[in-house]
Amino acid sequence: MTTPDLPTLDLLGIGNAIVDVLARADDAFLAQHGMAKGSMTLITTEQAGAIYAAMGPGVEGSGGSAGNTCAVAAALGVRVGFLGKVADDTLGQVFGHDIRAAGVRFQTAPLVGGAPTARCLILVTPDGQRTMNTYLGACVTFGPDDVDEAEVASAAVTYMEGYLFDPPAAQAAFRKAARAAHAAGRRVAMTLSDPFCVGRHRAAFRDFVQNETDILFANEAELLSLYETENFEEALRQVQAEVMVAAVTRSELGSVVVAGDQRFAVAAVPTSVVDTTGAGDAYAAGFLAAMALGKALPECGRWGSVAAAEAISHFGARPQADLKALVAQA
Amino acid sequence: MTTPDLPTLDLLGIGNAIVDVLARADDAFLAQHGMAKGSMTLITTEQAGAIYAAMGPGVEGSGGSAGNTCAVAAALGVRVGFLGKVADDTLGQVFGHDIRAAGVRFQTAPLVGGAPTARCLILVTPDGQRTMNTYLGACVTFGPDDVDEAEVASAAVTYMEGYLFDPPAAQAAFRKAARAAHAAGRRVAMTLSDPFCVGRHRAAFRDFVQNETDILFANEAELLSLYETENFEEALRQVQAEVMVAAVTRSELGSVVVAGDQRFAVAAVPTSVVDTTGAGDAYAAGFLAAMALGKALPECGRWGSVAAAEAISHFGARPQADLKALVAQA
Repeated sequence: MTTPDLPTLDLLGIGNAIVDVLARADDAFLAQHGMAKGSMTLITTEQAGAIYAAMGPGVEGSGGSAGNTCAVAAALGVRVGFLGKVADDTLGQVFGHDIRAAGVRFQTAPLVGGAPTARCLILVTPDGQRTMNTYLGACVTFGPDDVDEAEVASAAVTYMEGYLFDPPAAQAAFRKAARAAHAAGRRVAMTLSDPFCVGRHRAAFRDFVQNETDILFANEAELLSLYETENFEEALRQVQAEVMVAAVTRSELGSVVVAGDQRFAVAAVPTSVVDTTGAGDAYAAGFLAAMALGKALPECGRWGSVAAAEAISHFGARPQADLKALVAQA
Repeated sequence: MTTPDLPTLDLLGIGNAIVDVLARADDAFLAQHGMAKGSMTLITTEQAGAIYAAMGPGVEGSGGSAGNTCAVAAALGVRVGFLGKVADDTLGQVFGHDIRAAGVRFQTAPLVGGAPTARCLILVTPDGQRTMNTYLGACVTFGPDDVDEAEVASAAVTYMEGYLFDPPAAQAAFRKAARAAHAAGRRVAMTLSDPFCVGRHRAAFRDFVQNETDILFANEAELLSLYETENFEEALRQVQAEVMVAAVTRSELGSVVVAGDQRFAVAAVPTSVVDTTGAGDAYAAGFLAAMALGKALPECGRWGSVAAAEAISHFGARPQADLKALVAQA
């Protein structure tokens, strides 16, 4: 029996339920197809067909930013749930299998008779950078009805990806979840996801960060985009005033964690860069898992760095190594 | 314009068209499900469902023994075609995309309205060994009608996987292809694929090796199974008498190439073992690609070792590195 006031989940992720198709490509391929390296672009069915036909042999694996975060957090031993919309098709079965097999509770009803499961065509260049082309498919139907307020209330932290600002009904679901979390005395975390996504929806992001977000994840480019500044220090001061905790990642420079008037610099964990897909997602997972286990903020940042390094060291977004063992190393 | 007598393909592979689902597992998982480590077991739809439900998060990628060999050979710069049966479904599209994107000609008509595309559930243990569970699906309908004799005649070497002895109609296709190849003055190559597969169909294998095979690939266990001996030297003498060229792989001991009264020992290329899936397939590809480019037998073996080492060094069966650059290194 669980006391009603105690959360039964440490983390509930909400995000686009996506299967990744990863292929290697050179810079010329990106240029030829007008892709901005390192960014995420939304594509239509037709564009997805054309890019897939042109790209090299692929490897498929479950992805989605918050989905990746949930899988990594579960691998670190905390109790995790996920909300997101797949279709009733082969890729939807793959997504559902993988996230459940990772130990994550996933109960969102699949879409029947509509668009297929979302996929992200990811081109990985020789420098390890990933350039993403996302066909949202069934994700565009994810809406407030997919958010069970009791499930949100059962989670210590509800974590949402900024990419949810793109599908039409997801923002409303996002706000419903945030309200339900706060009404239950829980925390709301989010990631800014992508500087261009922030640019597309800056006013909504600003409002959500100021009024609904307790724990914010961002990389440097996303934070600068949010506050429309080129001054990192200025952006840090702003976010420090607006949220309880912010963790800002800076690639090989590590991360900066701000909380109230405290500020911590966290080192990156050195590794060879194979594929940066999922690095930010893994950082958030490590951070939130450590937080759920009662670690101090610098240690939360270290867990984030360890998880991000693992993600970067192989092809694909989901963990391949024993993450519990990795964070246990000094 | 090509002179009719000159082959327009260096290599035509015939095999089961399979999508791999790879997941990490420990030895206890194999024991619990009665799996013999390192082997390939044929499974039913029901078994596939049960194993998939029990196994961990997966990574999907095109596979199939001869399909892998074709993809690797194409990456090494030779002209390659492939014959194999997928269904008209998502995984069939994935298989077709990947092999064509690898530069392989693939024109076999997909199966419509029958079994789905074949999949192989591969459990990779911490020692890097892969244990395979294959649901043959659409592959069981691959038959003689899928073999175009003109296409076989256009290829310098037709290469077939021993796994084709399992689907009911494939053996007949296999024999039709061998006859068409020899009638056109071309070579027939095959791999024994798996010691248990050899055990299931030993008489047919023995007959095919003696009467239809010019170039044979096998690992030590498969060769011993073929000749029902525990004496490697004895097995080598037998195969030496029966085929023009045999290349026998011995894991970290490298390989032995026999041809007429010649015998060459080829060293393995040292690498860290991540996942042995596709190692033998890659060895055959390197060997046959070098042969197509007119290299001497020891050099063919070295190309095989280089390609196998690349396959072993990462998760999944298809190449991730620049193989041409790897074989060019001394």
